[in-house]
Formats: sequence, C-alpha cells, structure tokens
Amino acid sequence: MMLIRTDIYMQLLFNSVHLRQLEKFHVIIDSELAVKMLRDAPSPGKNWSAFLKVDCGNNRAGVWWKDEAGVDLAVLLQNSPNIDFAGVYVHCGNSYHTSSSEEVIQVLDDTIERLMTFVNHVRQRGVTCSTVGIGSTPTCRKPTDRMKSLTELHPGNYAFLDVQQWSLGSCTEEDIACCVATRVIGHYPRRNQMLIDCGFTGLTKQGYGEMASGYGVIRGHPNLKLCKMTQEIGFVESLEGKLDYSLFPVNSLLYILPWHSCATAAMHSVYYVVEGDTVVEEWRPTRGW
Amino acid sequence: MMLIRTDIYMQLLFNSVHLRQLEKFHVIIDSELAVKMLRDAPSPGKNWSAFLKVDCGNNRAGVWWKDEAGVDLAVLLQNSPNIDFAGVYVHCGNSYHTSSSEEVIQVLDDTIERLMTFVNHVRQRGVTCSTVGIGSTPTCRKPTDRMKSLTELHPGNYAFLDVQQWSLGSCTEEDIACCVATRVIGHYPRRNQMLIDCGFTGLTKQGYGEMASGYGVIRGHPNLKLCKMTQEIGFVESLEGKLDYSLFPVNSLLYILPWHSCATAAMHSVYYVVEGDTVVEEWRPTRGW
Repeated sequence: MMLIRTDIYMQLLFNSVHLRQLEKFHVIIDSELAVKMLRDAPSPGKNWSAFLKVDCGNNRAGVWWKDEAGVDLAVLLQNSPNIDFAGVYVHCGNSYHTSSSEEVIQVLDDTIERLMTFVNHVRQRGVTCSTVGIGSTPTCRKPTDRMKSLTELHPGNYAFLDVQQWSLGSCTEEDIACCVATRVIGHYPRRNQMLIDCGFTGLTKQGYGEMASGYGVIRGHPNLKLCKMTQEIGFVESLEGKLDYSLFPVNSLLYILPWHSCATAAMHSVYYVVEGDTVVEEWRPTRGW
Repeated sequence: MMLIRTDIYMQLLFNSVHLRQLEKFHVIIDSELAVKMLRDAPSPGKNWSAFLKVDCGNNRAGVWWKDEAGVDLAVLLQNSPNIDFAGVYVHCGNSYHTSSSEEVIQVLDDTIERLMTFVNHVRQRGVTCSTVGIGSTPTCRKPTDRMKSLTELHPGNYAFLDVQQWSLGSCTEEDIACCVATRVIGHYPRRNQMLIDCGFTGLTKQGYGEMASGYGVIRGHPNLKLCKMTQEIGFVESLEGKLDYSLFPVNSLLYILPWHSCATAAMHSVYYVVEGDTVVEEWRPTRGW
C-alpha cells in the first residue's frame, strides 16, 4: 500500500505494465485533493481500491477521528466514480511511547474505541466500510477482546521483532527473528577494542542510548558493547574488564540483534533464512519507496 | 579498496570472474594474520596489491604509528611472495571532532608528521613505500605545505559535501552538491505540521541534535524544521509562528540537504545529476559491502 503523492506519480502508475497486470492496487488517502485526483484519473478498466487513513491519536497521517470532515471524506469516496471504498486504516504508533504493557493495552483500547466511533458515524451516513484495520506491533502483541470489532491487523514489525519490542515487553530475546552476521576484523588491545565489519550501513545508528550494549545487542555476549560505528566498521569493547581476545579470533562471527529491525532490514538487499547454521532460503525484499 | 576479512572471503574473491579480469585489486591490511593469508592465497598470475593501514591518532583500524611492530609488518609485506607492497594509508577521521579550522589544520599536520615518522622508519629498513596517502574531507579542504610529503589524498565525502562539512567550516551551503528531493503529501493544521514523503529510509536519522532544523536543512526555507521521521514519512513544522500552507501545497517539492551525505547517499540506488531543473545524467553507485 502507498500514500498518494502526485498526479504525475499516478500517471506513471497507470502507465506501468505491472499495475495494469495487477488484480487490485490499494491506495491510502486522507484528503479531498487525493479523492479528486483518484476520481479524475484515467481508469484502465479497474477501479482504485481506496482506504481512508484515520488518526486516532498517533498524530501522523490521517483524518482526525473526531472531525466530521473525515466522515464527509468517506461519503465522497463511496460516491466517487473510479473508486471502490475499501475501508479504514489506522496506525497506532503511539504505542511505542509507553513504558508498560498496561499502557500499550490502553493505547490499543483507546484506538479501537475512537476508530469504532468514527466507523459508526460513517456507517450511519450510509457508507459501507468493509475493512476496519489497525496496526502497530506492540498493540498486536497484546490482544484484547475489543479487537473483535476489527477485520484486519497490519503490524509491520511483527515478522522479525527486535530489541525495541523486547524492551517494550512485546517479546523475549528468543523471539527476535533477525540479526546481522558480522566478522571480527581486527584486535586493538592498546585501546581494549576490536573492530567488526558491520557499520551503520549494515545496522543503522538507531537505538543508541536505549541499550547498555550500544547500537545493538551482540547475541550471547552480554559483556560486549557496540560503542561506535562508521560506515562499514563497528567498534566493540567490553562493558566490564578487559576484552578476552582469545574468545573472538579475527574471522570469527558475531550476531547483532538490531534495535529496530524495520530500519536494519531496509539496509540489506538479501535476507538469509537459516535453520540452525544452515541457510535454507534467500529472500529478496521488494523495494520501490 | 577493502579490508581483508576471511580466508573464505578471499577464496570467493579469487574465484570471482570480475576479480580475475581486473588489472589490479587493492587490499588494506593491518595485521600479520592478514599478510600470511595473502601470502598463502593462490595467485592467478597476479600479485595482491597491499596497502598497510596506519593509525596516526584516529583510533580506528591500522597499526599504531609509534609501534615497531607496524614497521616489521611493512618489511614482511615487502618480502612476501604474491604481494606487492603499495604503500601506506591513513584515515584522519579525528578531524571531525574539532571546533575550528585551526584544530582541523592541527589534526592534518599532526597526522602527516606522525605518518612521515613511520614512513621514514620503514624506508630506513629498506622498504620501498611508493604511496603515502591520507584521507578525511575536513583536512583535505584545508591544505597546508606539509601535504607536499604525500602522494595521495582520499577524502570520501569530498564529492558531495554536506551540512556536517558546512558546520565544520569545510565549505559553504552552496558547495553542498547533493540533496534529497521530497514532496509535501499532507497538511495537518491541527498540530501545525505537514508531512513529506521522505523518512529515515530516504535520509537516515544521522545529525539530529546538531541542527536547529532537525534531521536536515530544507534548502531555501530556514524557518522549516524536519522534526521527526518514521520509515517513509517526515514531519515538518515551523521554527517560529504558524506554517503558511499556501507556500507548500500538497505535491510541491522540497529539497533536503543531509547532515552526512555518505550515509544518505548509501540509502539510494540512483542519483540524478541535475543542471538547474534538468536531469542530465543518472548515476548508479557500485554496491558490494
């Protein structure tokens, strides 16, 4: 799914062979301008499938759940040629700014209550709202009864999880399904450090200051800190005492659990799927943003 | 150029058609283990061209300039089969931790003085040291007479420059040769913000806290602040007063000067070279880290 950007962009989309071959192409909108662009865009025998994005407190994109203008937009979508109104879409990313499971559940329940208030208004205006979906991985890891009102969940981080989710109580360390493999490339006893061949292009700098272990968690080595990174180089030192270099010979592998797996995964063009030490599949993510 | 990582990796390199076709393939080493690996690696009719990395105060990779062990390594390189000793390579990235041009020049001169001390020792041991090179863009933007001792400069950031270099006094805003083009995708007057279609996958989060304007400098709009970014979305607000949305219609373009162009450029697979508003070339960077 993608946010509508420009009329030029839409024209490009229409001219794309891939798009014409697609069964359905979803777009998310939150403004009258976007509805008008969709309505007036040439349709090659297929309607646009349009979701209305609703802001229930996350303060990113979306019509504000309390504003009647948002309900008007749903009515406009329903009544517009070239458009199939698919439903509503919410991201409750405000769940990341919590400090306990109770607060995550509060965000979840507040979001659903606000969204259902909006959806009920929309339905009262005679609009069919088939899909009612929310996202955010922390909330989807803490399901409650209120979720029964929903028809869809879309938690982007759910597939991999990461240290941030672990710290939010969404999962355990063992649940984290992705890591960056890196090799020790040098020992520097003069400054009690070693270097690894993973810098910010392999991990990103996100999460620094959130973990005692620096820019990530080095799996199985709680005394190691990834204290600094340049483009392709990481600096590793010990949290306590001197590094025992005999445990980390040059060429040996370390595995870094990332703070934010969405950001880290975006840095790589191939993901190796492993069972134990065996690579069983290679995944190549779809790009295009 | 690349740092040597593993014997497996070297074997892969040797088996690579591209490598065998190359006239010369440079490697940088800073340990006896790496020299032994190069020496014992099969050579398909060509010698490795090996640089010795020297640490003159930057504290990243390299033999410490004062250590006799580093000089011994140069001798070993010179006398090893399968290896052509190409010279020495220094990165004086400590120039980034300065607060005036005088301090940058001090780092430059200290680096060259230390490097030439090392090189003279190496030459006294009968080793030919053809290339004597240093890097770091801040130092290369402040050339001094001492640079006459060098045969090579390798400033990685020099081609593009960025807001970090501007703040270090290496260049002016007009010298910055790369920016990220982004479109306004929504107006949110309720919170005095607008959204753009550039998040951290388009810019990285580097530099936050260094600029009053947030995660980058929005060219030509000193009152705008890129205050927050999620994966594909940026949040823009005004530093003072209310946003005048009439100046930034949905679909209009903004241009963001990055804090660290090396990091930002690494996020993109195509660079559009422009003259005025015309795209005159497309560059596709070589990957492979």
